[in-house]
Amino acid sequence: MSMRVVFLGTGAAVPTAMRSLPAVLVQRGNEQFLFDCGEAVQRQMIRAKVGLHKKMRIFLTHMHGDHVLGLPGLLQTMALMDRTKPVAVYAPPGLTHFLECMQETLQFQLTFEVQVFEVTGVGVICNEEEYSIEAVPSKHAIKSFAYAFVEKPRAGKFFPEKAKALGVPKGEAWGRLQHGREYVFPNAGQVIKSEDVSGPPRQGRKIVYTGDTRPFDAFASFAYNADLVIHEATFDDSLIERAEADGHSTPSEAATQAKKANAKSLVLTHISARYMDTALLEEQAKRIFSNTIVAEDLLELKLPLSE
Amino acid sequence: MSMRVVFLGTGAAVPTAMRSLPAVLVQRGNEQFLFDCGEAVQRQMIRAKVGLHKKMRIFLTHMHGDHVLGLPGLLQTMALMDRTKPVAVYAPPGLTHFLECMQETLQFQLTFEVQVFEVTGVGVICNEEEYSIEAVPSKHAIKSFAYAFVEKPRAGKFFPEKAKALGVPKGEAWGRLQHGREYVFPNAGQVIKSEDVSGPPRQGRKIVYTGDTRPFDAFASFAYNADLVIHEATFDDSLIERAEADGHSTPSEAATQAKKANAKSLVLTHISARYMDTALLEEQAKRIFSNTIVAEDLLELKLPLSE
Repeated sequence: MSMRVVFLGTGAAVPTAMRSLPAVLVQRGNEQFLFDCGEAVQRQMIRAKVGLHKKMRIFLTHMHGDHVLGLPGLLQTMALMDRTKPVAVYAPPGLTHFLECMQETLQFQLTFEVQVFEVTGVGVICNEEEYSIEAVPSKHAIKSFAYAFVEKPRAGKFFPEKAKALGVPKGEAWGRLQHGREYVFPNAGQVIKSEDVSGPPRQGRKIVYTGDTRPFDAFASFAYNADLVIHEATFDDSLIERAEADGHSTPSEAATQAKKANAKSLVLTHISARYMDTALLEEQAKRIFSNTIVAEDLLELKLPLSE
Repeated sequence: MSMRVVFLGTGAAVPTAMRSLPAVLVQRGNEQFLFDCGEAVQRQMIRAKVGLHKKMRIFLTHMHGDHVLGLPGLLQTMALMDRTKPVAVYAPPGLTHFLECMQETLQFQLTFEVQVFEVTGVGVICNEEEYSIEAVPSKHAIKSFAYAFVEKPRAGKFFPEKAKALGVPKGEAWGRLQHGREYVFPNAGQVIKSEDVSGPPRQGRKIVYTGDTRPFDAFASFAYNADLVIHEATFDDSLIERAEADGHSTPSEAATQAKKANAKSLVLTHISARYMDTALLEEQAKRIFSNTIVAEDLLELKLPLSE
């Protein structure tokens, strides 16, 4: 299953000529997972050519305008394109009132259902056969959450020779075993388990998105072993006091969090408008966690399946 | 006084890679007049380098999301930049409730006053020494207005020889006469009027912005003699039925309106996302009104003073 991350908006609070407001899209097969909805996210999606008709879930980290104000326009545009599939939106309390306000004052009519799920504490907020989404309270000026996209383990590598040697017929039976299920011989009733003909289960992919936050203790276990941590780094290390006051992080802090979580890679985002050149931010983070880059708008990362 | 028009967003309803949502900025000296506030207008202003700290009045043609949703983010960004100057917003009824909703649900705090003026009918909605802004009800799916920026006439061209011949001393006296006031000789009490030493009063500049609308009868007199008519032309002539159904105009209709108004120039804007190439729209309008162009994002037009 292909999986990619598209950084739709990488700015902080105020957009710049180079950076739109916060939004990160995870696309897995034909499903989309949109983290935050900064103003103009719909245009960034059009620019990135990711499509607006797929199955979509939206996750808002907190109810500040720069993370939310792209939502009404996105929904409105989906309606103008005659979308019928529902859109699920997960957010801290307040979103329902916000959407009611939009409908009252701007009178837009939707052609599909918006399913609002209130996120109130730590835990799994969405659980599907192949993946789950988890939330954890983060540490910002208002109630806020970080989110993790967690793919469940896949069956181990299939060894056709072993299946042949055990006399399992090709076709449907192999398919069952390849997908982690068992095969029962019709006559003898002998049971062949997936692990009899496969290697060990393969890890799923894991992506963590922090939203706006100070470093917080629960992060290391929440993001443990993540393939990708997308961490905000609004201010460079010299502005640590400003970061503390406003509920944001510095590159060193983001890198320390990624390191504690034993993450494989780190992308810094939510970059203050003051940084035209982000070399400094990257350098500060790399001293602590070498596999770091700074996001830019429309950056796309592919996450390969584990072998 | 320099005057320019910057087309910040020229799309219709849905943005495209090339067109942001509707917003047109008129800048006169150090004052800004923003017509409509489509999503991402703040970023378009940053891109256009027009500044966010000037004296500003905003005019909303109607309360549809694609013309309004850029307003909260713009105000929020101004506050983050510590703006203290008030911002006046003129709009059909509903704006106050919309802004209250924003403040309740997104909790943004402003550092300046937002002065809301409800536009309810035809007439002058803002009257200053050198210009006025007029509104007229237009014809869209909901209550909507077109606006005119009307510069008042300036004093005629000053003829120094005439002033000299009449014995008017250089300096303050000449200044008074150049600005349309009179000069009284201190001894004799003889009065020299501005017109004694000047040509006829010179016309001010006039710009009309339609917002979303079908052609409507009052337009010709409202836009009479405009230097620039900025008219929506969402659909090409072949989609006239769609234009009628949705409350929009075609290029031929926009051109006919400009012609009836005896306007000097026409810019078509609010271009449907279906038109990647706008040659067809321009051609349809030019058959009726030759001095027509189709706007594109960040197009800037300078309006020279009349001689």
